[in-house]
Amino acid sequence: MDAAALWQRYQDWLYYHEGLGFYLDISRMRFDDAFVAALQPKFERAFRDMAELEKGALANPDENRMVGHYWLRDPDLAPTAELKQDIVETLGQIEAFTQKVHSGAIRPPQAEKFTDVLSIGIGGSALGPQFVAAALAPDFPPLNLHFIDNTDPAGIDRVLTQLQDRLSSTLVITISKSGGTPETRNGMLEVQKAYNDQGLNFPQYAIAITGQDSSLDKLAKSEEWLATFPMHDWVGGRTSELSSVGLLPAALQGIDIRTMLEGAKEMDAATRIPNLKSNPAALLALAWYYAGNGRGEKDMVVLPYKDSLLLFSRYLQQLVMESLGKEKDLNGQVVHQGIAVYGNKGSTDQHAYVQQLREGVANFFVTFIEVLRDRQGPSVEVEPGVTSGDYLSGLLQGTRRALYENQRDSITVTIPQVDPYNVGALIALYERAVGFYGFLVNVNAYHQPGVEAGKKAAASVLDLQKQVVKALQQSGQPLSLQAIAEKAGAPDQIEPIYKIVRHLAANQRTVTLHGNPAQPNQLTVSAL
Amino acid sequence: MDAAALWQRYQDWLYYHEGLGFYLDISRMRFDDAFVAALQPKFERAFRDMAELEKGALANPDENRMVGHYWLRDPDLAPTAELKQDIVETLGQIEAFTQKVHSGAIRPPQAEKFTDVLSIGIGGSALGPQFVAAALAPDFPPLNLHFIDNTDPAGIDRVLTQLQDRLSSTLVITISKSGGTPETRNGMLEVQKAYNDQGLNFPQYAIAITGQDSSLDKLAKSEEWLATFPMHDWVGGRTSELSSVGLLPAALQGIDIRTMLEGAKEMDAATRIPNLKSNPAALLALAWYYAGNGRGEKDMVVLPYKDSLLLFSRYLQQLVMESLGKEKDLNGQVVHQGIAVYGNKGSTDQHAYVQQLREGVANFFVTFIEVLRDRQGPSVEVEPGVTSGDYLSGLLQGTRRALYENQRDSITVTIPQVDPYNVGALIALYERAVGFYGFLVNVNAYHQPGVEAGKKAAASVLDLQKQVVKALQQSGQPLSLQAIAEKAGAPDQIEPIYKIVRHLAANQRTVTLHGNPAQPNQLTVSAL
Repeated sequence: MDAAALWQRYQDWLYYHEGLGFYLDISRMRFDDAFVAALQPKFERAFRDMAELEKGALANPDENRMVGHYWLRDPDLAPTAELKQDIVETLGQIEAFTQKVHSGAIRPPQAEKFTDVLSIGIGGSALGPQFVAAALAPDFPPLNLHFIDNTDPAGIDRVLTQLQDRLSSTLVITISKSGGTPETRNGMLEVQKAYNDQGLNFPQYAIAITGQDSSLDKLAKSEEWLATFPMHDWVGGRTSELSSVGLLPAALQGIDIRTMLEGAKEMDAATRIPNLKSNPAALLALAWYYAGNGRGEKDMVVLPYKDSLLLFSRYLQQLVMESLGKEKDLNGQVVHQGIAVYGNKGSTDQHAYVQQLREGVANFFVTFIEVLRDRQGPSVEVEPGVTSGDYLSGLLQGTRRALYENQRDSITVTIPQVDPYNVGALIALYERAVGFYGFLVNVNAYHQPGVEAGKKAAASVLDLQKQVVKALQQSGQPLSLQAIAEKAGAPDQIEPIYKIVRHLAANQRTVTLHGNPAQPNQLTVSAL
Repeated sequence: MDAAALWQRYQDWLYYHEGLGFYLDISRMRFDDAFVAALQPKFERAFRDMAELEKGALANPDENRMVGHYWLRDPDLAPTAELKQDIVETLGQIEAFTQKVHSGAIRPPQAEKFTDVLSIGIGGSALGPQFVAAALAPDFPPLNLHFIDNTDPAGIDRVLTQLQDRLSSTLVITISKSGGTPETRNGMLEVQKAYNDQGLNFPQYAIAITGQDSSLDKLAKSEEWLATFPMHDWVGGRTSELSSVGLLPAALQGIDIRTMLEGAKEMDAATRIPNLKSNPAALLALAWYYAGNGRGEKDMVVLPYKDSLLLFSRYLQQLVMESLGKEKDLNGQVVHQGIAVYGNKGSTDQHAYVQQLREGVANFFVTFIEVLRDRQGPSVEVEPGVTSGDYLSGLLQGTRRALYENQRDSITVTIPQVDPYNVGALIALYERAVGFYGFLVNVNAYHQPGVEAGKKAAASVLDLQKQVVKALQQSGQPLSLQAIAEKAGAPDQIEPIYKIVRHLAANQRTVTLHGNPAQPNQLTVSAL
């Protein structure tokens, strides 16, 4: 395609939203009109299904749940008056609580004000708040936000050690819908111990964000924690950034959450239009479908050219992959769907893996995120007439062009600046695009059966550990792995048992290993 | 394969290194003996080629360079006495300099000691130091390390704003082999301005790590910067973590760099053994080759179950993808090689994209990184007999098993703990594995032609910007995009020109746009 034809294609497919100052360019995805026409019926059905979803249909049939994250931004659309009131009241409570924390009306027993927030949560309870903090937190926020998002003891220790002098002015938010997520439960127990060790009364520092009547909800109420905010049944973890899960940490950091919600509402309205070329989320879904042949055959590389959007790809990894990565479609057919997502930021990645993108395996398409505003205030010139921001912009353009010339397709999303309004809009855009794509390929984008399976697999390993320790303690003498397996009633579990005793021994707990670790079958194990 | 056969396969393929306490398990990659036998001749050649490389062969033929990062860990192996002396002296200079900074013998004009280090570099000059800082920096390091690794004005402002009160005690390291990397040059100019704006004399805070006689080297010498450390011609950016590029920032943070080098030396020795089953890097390369059919058909998902190793996947993204992602092989045949790499950390990612890994598109293999030691000191029990670390360990085992049962292959790397010795060993392991894989698929793993092409593409955009501004200023009246293109002598560059003026206008620089941005062909542009 020559330059004139390409420029015409660019204009034909350019989407622009005046209110948001938002552009979407899918002209560098090489689909043709026949492809668009062929997908048209699927989109018509997707627009209808999406309208039903927004009206409160049980769009997550496996879990018998409504999918209502869109209502958070426009409570008037909630299907019942109760839901609407609940959304509005929760937002009011978040703002009132935040205001009191900032003013010192709610304060720790031994200090004038809270200085830090420690958020304990994993997956959807961490990725959104982490992304938004990196994108939007002021340089000197009223409270500094920290995360425990894993069950790694050394990781927990690092956070707690760095906070040790300020623990007495640190708010702790524990985020778990069920209260039963083990990583989060473990993090909370470790943090509680740290408070106790400093003689601090944990409930006076603690907030829960959780489902009504969950085990965490009951604990928070019985111990009289500072506050509890709801996690609604109809908001999934990966679409919870604009619920209390994301809004409370953002507000505490001084981020304007009303404006985030406004941006998302505006984008929701734009992506509600049942017409492909007028709907940026539908255009994104179209491009994804084209790239991977509706089967995820190409990876989605996300390259924001802006440092503060570094974590957007990690946020999208969950949103896209957990939503779309499914074994079966809604008819029960085995489809092994999904789209792999990775990326960091441009132009930095130009000096890392863009070498492979340009020349190597052609197993991806790129999404460039362009931010028009370079910085607050004027720029120094690094060459006559040229700024650092011109370089960033030129590198984006140059990379996009070079990839296209090498038959590598790309999408370009352009926003005016990184602020609460536009970040809210970006979140809403991708939530909707994932929803559309889920309809196009006919998967339930709102459940995550594999996550539950992972918890069960881990629980069975921990059960086995208990059996192993019991068998060793009862035996009173060194045992081979095979003997342990037999005594533990798990004769086919020798390998997991080897891993368990190796881990225990490395931590000087419960067991000692004798023999050469390279020859597991000759090892013996005794109770410590 | 039943449990007993699988356990036998595990033992048959288990690699263990006693000195390092290091394990590698490739038993969950489903290759068979015929596959191993078929690759044997390729490995024999790879072992010979690697021995030649270490002896100083021009293993990077395109750039006519030796590949000598192995010598950094064992200077006795350097091919000449001069090179050996250079390596030994550089290490001594880094230690002597660091000691003086820590003691205050080298100090800023207005403070007792330096408190912070600001590193300006991109790609190989940032990814290694960032990974090592996250993995190994003490909780309260003698100097806090910050990075400018992009040409993003807002990103630069964020770093400088957060440092503004401590700029007068901040060391600045500028890292660029040629001195000509524009992102790094821009970052340095912006930082220099910040020092000047505070009335601070930049050279008294500045260090260069650069190639001999580069433009940066000359600048540093003419301005009498605090110090200059060498970047050798025979060390590539992505293998430079154990050169001054990585060692100086690490040492300044109080990380034991001699021990890092020792760990790498030990792993280098282990991966020098010309026998597949005795060589963990060769085993890794074998597994990669099997997974992707020698053509990168599967993505490498890297999942360290340890918070401090979070950035290992980003480090490996460069090391693997920039090394292997090549259009042509060494014979000039078009091959489009490479292996895509992504990942963050377990068990966190269990609540993000592991849903897709378990159930969705089977386009990947996983590398689990297991760390045996949970933490320094004892652990609280989160359930009777169970710690947070047991959960982490159980989640790793459970995920590995569940993936295997779903026909998803994985490798498990096990290290005793995250410390300088083992991090050095991990770096050396992957450097060598990438080298072997490069030989197996016959690509030059030590050049990056696409990176140079990207710089050129960006430079042409910046040239065009200058022409556009000139045309507008000369015209004195609003012009259409097409008219600008003609006056700028670039009639086929209307789209790049549109992007350029949109970016300039968004930053209130040089130009104003008139009309509807959604209809670029009706826009007019005037000089401000």
